[in-house]
Amino acid sequence: MVSAAEGAAIVRRAMTVLLEPVPAHVPLPTGFRAAGLHCGLKKNRQLDLGLLLADQPSPAAAIFTQNQLVGAHVHLCRDHLTRGNGLVRAVLVNARNANCATGAKGIEDARRCCRELAERVRCPTEQVIMASTGPIGAPLPTELIVSHLDALLERVSADGAMDFARAIMTTDTYPKALHATGPHGTATGFAKGSGMIHPDMATMLGFLVTDGHLGEAKANVLRSLADRSFHCVTVDGDTSPNDSLFLLASGRVRGDVHRLEATLTELGQQLARRIAADGEGATRLITVQVRGARSEAEAIRVGRVIATSPLVKTAVAGLDPNWGRILSAAGRAGVAFVADRTRVWVGPADVFSGGAPHPENEAAAHRHLVGDQEVMLGIDLACGSASADVWTCDLTKDYVQINADYRS
Amino acid sequence: MVSAAEGAAIVRRAMTVLLEPVPAHVPLPTGFRAAGLHCGLKKNRQLDLGLLLADQPSPAAAIFTQNQLVGAHVHLCRDHLTRGNGLVRAVLVNARNANCATGAKGIEDARRCCRELAERVRCPTEQVIMASTGPIGAPLPTELIVSHLDALLERVSADGAMDFARAIMTTDTYPKALHATGPHGTATGFAKGSGMIHPDMATMLGFLVTDGHLGEAKANVLRSLADRSFHCVTVDGDTSPNDSLFLLASGRVRGDVHRLEATLTELGQQLARRIAADGEGATRLITVQVRGARSEAEAIRVGRVIATSPLVKTAVAGLDPNWGRILSAAGRAGVAFVADRTRVWVGPADVFSGGAPHPENEAAAHRHLVGDQEVMLGIDLACGSASADVWTCDLTKDYVQINADYRS
Repeated sequence: MVSAAEGAAIVRRAMTVLLEPVPAHVPLPTGFRAAGLHCGLKKNRQLDLGLLLADQPSPAAAIFTQNQLVGAHVHLCRDHLTRGNGLVRAVLVNARNANCATGAKGIEDARRCCRELAERVRCPTEQVIMASTGPIGAPLPTELIVSHLDALLERVSADGAMDFARAIMTTDTYPKALHATGPHGTATGFAKGSGMIHPDMATMLGFLVTDGHLGEAKANVLRSLADRSFHCVTVDGDTSPNDSLFLLASGRVRGDVHRLEATLTELGQQLARRIAADGEGATRLITVQVRGARSEAEAIRVGRVIATSPLVKTAVAGLDPNWGRILSAAGRAGVAFVADRTRVWVGPADVFSGGAPHPENEAAAHRHLVGDQEVMLGIDLACGSASADVWTCDLTKDYVQINADYRS
Repeated sequence: MVSAAEGAAIVRRAMTVLLEPVPAHVPLPTGFRAAGLHCGLKKNRQLDLGLLLADQPSPAAAIFTQNQLVGAHVHLCRDHLTRGNGLVRAVLVNARNANCATGAKGIEDARRCCRELAERVRCPTEQVIMASTGPIGAPLPTELIVSHLDALLERVSADGAMDFARAIMTTDTYPKALHATGPHGTATGFAKGSGMIHPDMATMLGFLVTDGHLGEAKANVLRSLADRSFHCVTVDGDTSPNDSLFLLASGRVRGDVHRLEATLTELGQQLARRIAADGEGATRLITVQVRGARSEAEAIRVGRVIATSPLVKTAVAGLDPNWGRILSAAGRAGVAFVADRTRVWVGPADVFSGGAPHPENEAAAHRHLVGDQEVMLGIDLACGSASADVWTCDLTKDYVQINADYRS
């Protein structure tokens, strides 16, 4: 058998292959432009201020964190989307400051940034929204941001997607932008963060822009695609006060709404997988496959408990096809099933079924953990026909190191 | 400031002091005897089979894991307690085998052990119950256990508590037995495991025996004390299929039921704290203090989310008084509160209140993390007057190491 250390080295190489396709260029749908620049929030002249600009006010929808602690931009976006009837011209994003736990002043600071940008774009203030990501508790450096708005607008272009993707990164190790196209419209998606992994770095932001048409369905489409993508990724179960997902659908291209929804969902899933793969300290992307559930909601619930179990995640780090931990984690999800009827697999190998473990298959399971780019852990609950996939990463000593030393 | 490594060394010394009082001798209430011996399940002749014996059938109550995967002993105990009208003469415990995921055969194996012991004790089979703890999936070595029952009964004595406590240990680093006394009766408590930390080692067992009288209240008393003790300890949120807590109250001593309940609750809390302090890889015992909640249930819910947050637990390992992580974790507990009105403290130092952080107090908070035996993390939700304490430990690289390498 390959040792954990050798295996980690092998898989780290594999992860690099998996994640390599960071495209040099990502197009934007017609009618959208983007930019990113360095305004002084990050060190080393890294991009830290991003802009997404729609040529015309675009129908938009958003969903936000369920955390009781809520970043200032969440209050502001809710207010602007309501008062602006869901039409958005510009999305401004800053990194390296969460503008969270900053009180009424924080909301006023965000509004000032939007107002200043709206004046320059010549649109109502409500058509500008803002998102912030970074450490909690420090006041937003409003002057610094406002003084760079002109330069940001000068740079805005149809080729600006990768600059925008870079500007919104915090502890991400690579920018996350993807493009999809079809007769029902093209779409570009952006994400930053590692799910719920850095609440101090307040955290997951997602942006989807499309020239397709969703009409009144846009809010439902966004919620539904989020349930199948960003809500299915977990790194450590810690949600952030700033988590936000935005969808701008300009409606230039008229096509089938359901096919557009499928495209957007796929885009969201690909971005979500990249978030899990980029989890702090991760050496492996894990896909938890739940099958045979009574409902998709129950399948997701079981998948999320397996995907947040420290014992499952450390077992993967240790290249251990530990079916007992997978079954035990499933058992505490609050979903009824008969353990003896379940089937548990690791990659291509069944490791538990018919009420008994299969030690003879553990070598094949171990090989999968060692060599494959993406680890598959599965359970069939034998209760129904619903299924779900949930994405996460392994839990390594590097995760503990990164988070123990974060502020020192 | 003290570095994380220096701090860990200091606190590890402090933990030793905290945990040192493993008493050489723990008495049992009149009418109870105990024993432990090595039957061959553990290596190095360590004790691995334990027995608690009541001179007369004793009223008993038990609560079991909520996991869907359930060890054979849970089925057996439920059955025997029902058919025996809750009267128990003997409790047999084996370590190093969970008798879990072993199907109908596993239940029959456990019943055979009980039947063999009942014949020797000359009581109905239903008055014998059994608990198993250890790795999941292997058949119970029934012959090995049965062939040692005579020797176990020969050793049984009023001085056998520490042998019993040692026999039920798995990855515990020290035995957990405590005694309390009062006019309403004396009580001895035992626990093993590190809460939900080793689902493979299927896991938390607790036993409380008293000569006091509880009458019909015994089931309610057990549930209520568990809610305030064993249900308030968490190491990693992973529950086990074998978690069980037993209470035997012989009723010899008639006294105030409420005072006896208070004594038993205190005993349960002290055992629960020891479980958290003995968590895998832990260098610190953490008490999460939730105050100002609308109800005790909400206080416990918030406390448990803080206590299971990997980010809070890695911050403590890194000696970082990271209020943002405490507040963010509280915010995702599903309990409504206004973040700006909360107060967050680390030991003696308020680190967030009045909607703003207090960087000037972080040095005092850091000193507490470095030097104190027990770390106190607190939040006042400013919603009501209910409170709860929850116990956990820090999350260290040793935890990852132990659980990544567990089966290799």
